[in-house]
Amino acid sequence: MLDTLAHVFQPLATKQFDLLLVIYLIAITAEAMSGALAAGRRSMDVFGVVVIAFVTALGGGTIRDVVLGHYPIGWTQHPEYVYLVVLAGLFTTLIARHMHHMKRLFLVLDALGLIAFSLIGCNVALQLNYPVVVVIMAGMLTGICGGILRDVLCNQVPIVFRRELYASVSLVVCALFLALRAAGVDTDLNMLVCFVLGFVFRMLALRFGWKLPTFHYQERWD
Amino acid sequence: MLDTLAHVFQPLATKQFDLLLVIYLIAITAEAMSGALAAGRRSMDVFGVVVIAFVTALGGGTIRDVVLGHYPIGWTQHPEYVYLVVLAGLFTTLIARHMHHMKRLFLVLDALGLIAFSLIGCNVALQLNYPVVVVIMAGMLTGICGGILRDVLCNQVPIVFRRELYASVSLVVCALFLALRAAGVDTDLNMLVCFVLGFVFRMLALRFGWKLPTFHYQERWD
Amino acid sequence: MLDTLAHVFQPLATKQFDLLLVIYLIAITAEAMSGALAAGRRSMDVFGVVVIAFVTALGGGTIRDVVLGHYPIGWTQHPEYVYLVVLAGLFTTLIARHMHHMKRLFLVLDALGLIAFSLIGCNVALQLNYPVVVVIMAGMLTGICGGILRDVLCNQVPIVFRRELYASVSLVVCALFLALRAAGVDTDLNMLVCFVLGFVFRMLALRFGWKLPTFHYQERWD
Repeated sequence: MLDTLAHVFQPLATKQFDLLLVIYLIAITAEAMSGALAAGRRSMDVFGVVVIAFVTALGGGTIRDVVLGHYPIGWTQHPEYVYLVVLAGLFTTLIARHMHHMKRLFLVLDALGLIAFSLIGCNVALQLNYPVVVVIMAGMLTGICGGILRDVLCNQVPIVFRRELYASVSLVVCALFLALRAAGVDTDLNMLVCFVLGFVFRMLALRFGWKLPTFHYQERWD
Repeated sequence: MLDTLAHVFQPLATKQFDLLLVIYLIAITAEAMSGALAAGRRSMDVFGVVVIAFVTALGGGTIRDVVLGHYPIGWTQHPEYVYLVVLAGLFTTLIARHMHHMKRLFLVLDALGLIAFSLIGCNVALQLNYPVVVVIMAGMLTGICGGILRDVLCNQVPIVFRRELYASVSLVVCALFLALRAAGVDTDLNMLVCFVLGFVFRMLALRFGWKLPTFHYQERWD
Repeated sequence: MLDTLAHVFQPLATKQFDLLLVIYLIAITAEAMSGALAAGRRSMDVFGVVVIAFVTALGGGTIRDVVLGHYPIGWTQHPEYVYLVVLAGLFTTLIARHMHHMKRLFLVLDALGLIAFSLIGCNVALQLNYPVVVVIMAGMLTGICGGILRDVLCNQVPIVFRRELYASVSLVVCALFLALRAAGVDTDLNMLVCFVLGFVFRMLALRFGWKLPTFHYQERWD
């Protein structure tokens, strides 16, 4: 088993093994686990669990790459990411009954993941020379579309359209990153600032239940 | 505010500023507003409203470009379209209570938009030398997929699969456009004919409630 | 009518007219018909029927090609496939009342189609030199995504996440194909073995109601 894991993660050792990658790996694991729980709420079988885990963790980056025409798509060049999220999904079915004790941990990991996804998405679009608004959207797509795909496949209205500030955190992080970058701030420092401020923003939103105003409209005329 | 608008639309002035573009801009605005109302019917927050507005207005073209492999996708090169549909979505939340007075206006704009989207979609596929049936499908994808994505994200069966002749109008417009084009008719005249006939067809369908026959099947055996 | 059919299928005569293609054509016809029935269960109009038929039959290959960046997408170069699935969808609305007599036939065709789709998907990814896990996923995407798109558009949780071993058959077929290929087995023999074993596996799963274990999780904490 340890050998297998070593084999799975070996490819990573040959890359620039920086903090963003570590956070990314932790984040896709956490997203896969939360996706598996969503599948369990729909009483899916193990295959459904694995698909929803995969889609929740890697679907956002997939949508981003398709929209930007950024081929080959990220995870197709990193089989280890696929193994990781599949194993995370399966593992979740074993420890599900204990996971509510880790609610706070998951909210923390989810917040870090949202920021990591957003920054990675911005960087992909920047490399392809897209306009500023597309760069910001690429960051947000990466951070949010996994959850949207999960909810569509689970046949419910995406919760990101209703819950505490989440997409807004991604938007603020992306805009802040681009502003500091335009101001010539060093990339490492820039990312650190984005993580700290984005994380604090998300935690405050959760703590105080900050939400965007809701739009209610009941008339049917089209 | 006027300065902002001037800035937003300035890029347009450098393009071939023809009637089709004007109709397109009006149409994506109207589609974004109708998308925002759909989001309001699901009591989404402001972020959800903006996403549904965007997807309704620009999702059809996005799906078309992805299916045809037509990169970069249209709106990524026109940030002004993104600003326009986002603003239209937000504006809708302010004036929603008055919008039912404009029902007829919206049906007119929606019909013009359907035709504009169809013609634009056909032209994109023609430039890429796709076969005739794909050209027609590209036109229909552009006209219809925005509404399908909106309905999927709002967790309902797409209404385009059930309501008055709508996709059929797109099909007729695309086929007419290709037929006149094959007959050597001048493009401007061709488009004018398509707009007039397509618009009359759609208005008659609405006026008299023309629908395609419905297929009811209740047995469950798979 | 015969002339039309001859015209539609003429392009096929110029290709390597092998057994896999015949099975593929039968399979997309069967998938289109099952899609049409699903549309009928939602009381869609004829346009909806055609869309769901198309998406069920050709949507899996479309998703695979988009994910792999394999352009142009298969059916855009084969208009005859589009005509075939559209006609199959329309034909279904005429004979629907008699189709429950053919339940077993459809399950057989569906099983053959699942295997054909899986093998075709693997081959596309192999040609593009994707890693093994992506090759397997390409096979599974081709086999399964059509049904997932159908269910999403019909506003229900995809049944592939819940029913008798189906995705598992695709997984086993893809893995077997790659293993025999790595062992140097001739491609024709390899495909024959995959068809026989995959078909038997699927039929046994149906006969004995084999299912993957289901994951139930009811707590809501995110």
